[in-house]
Amino acid sequence: APPDYQGIGTAFVSHYYNLFDTSRASLAPLYRPTSLLTFEGEPFMGVDPILTKLTTLPFAKVVHQVTTSDFQPVMPDPVAPGMPAPPASVLVFVSGSLMVDDSPNPLKFSQVFHLSPDPANPMSYWVRNDMFRLNYA
Amino acid sequence: APPDYQGIGTAFVSHYYNLFDTSRASLAPLYRPTSLLTFEGEPFMGVDPILTKLTTLPFAKVVHQVTTSDFQPVMPDPVAPGMPAPPASVLVFVSGSLMVDDSPNPLKFSQVFHLSPDPANPMSYWVRNDMFRLNYA
Repeated sequence: APPDYQGIGTAFVSHYYNLFDTSRASLAPLYRPTSLLTFEGEPFMGVDPILTKLTTLPFAKVVHQVTTSDFQPVMPDPVAPGMPAPPASVLVFVSGSLMVDDSPNPLKFSQVFHLSPDPANPMSYWVRNDMFRLNYA
Repeated sequence: APPDYQGIGTAFVSHYYNLFDTSRASLAPLYRPTSLLTFEGEPFMGVDPILTKLTTLPFAKVVHQVTTSDFQPVMPDPVAPGMPAPPASVLVFVSGSLMVDDSPNPLKFSQVFHLSPDPANPMSYWVRNDMFRLNYA
């Protein structure tokens, strides 16, 4: 059966942008050594490189406003006949606006997350893939 | 080792939008019975529902112009100690503009694809996940 991907995705989006907008360093537990971030085309891998990028973005205040959020389960095939399929993960696709510092002009963005369950705790998801883009008008 | 995700993704994006803009029905071989499409928030599963949606969109002519395309490998964990990891797949994240019929006003869009290798032919990828959104100004 697929996981409750709508519930997982909805909770993740709320949690992620709340942390991002209040305490970016607190995002660290969501990433792992194999996590990948592509931020405006620039690639990062692992907790420290990703957190360094996110915490050194050139603004002091940021507020994300989510306009759309879509979720899908990722249901892998069995690896071999008779073997159980790997656990399902969740794709998250967000679009919205960013208010940066005291600029009156919101920036449009879209972002993709691929959330994987922790093998030791299938109720706990981490960010395996993260891709962020500003959408210029 | 990760697949050549940049090459696979680049070839896919070119192939996909070329087919979409010239012969939407020709996209059918890219989807499978378990493929998921979320189009402007509306969910579809399987080749026929997805193709019906794509081929009945209310325009006769469409041209996609890709502005940004980002690619990441999805490297699954082994299912059990000593077992090989499932084959890697590829995440594709596109933003761009749509020119519809003879409208002079391009529409901004962003789209996510999750491409999985065919177990019987690991050089052949199919669309496991597809999420499309127009980005209104």
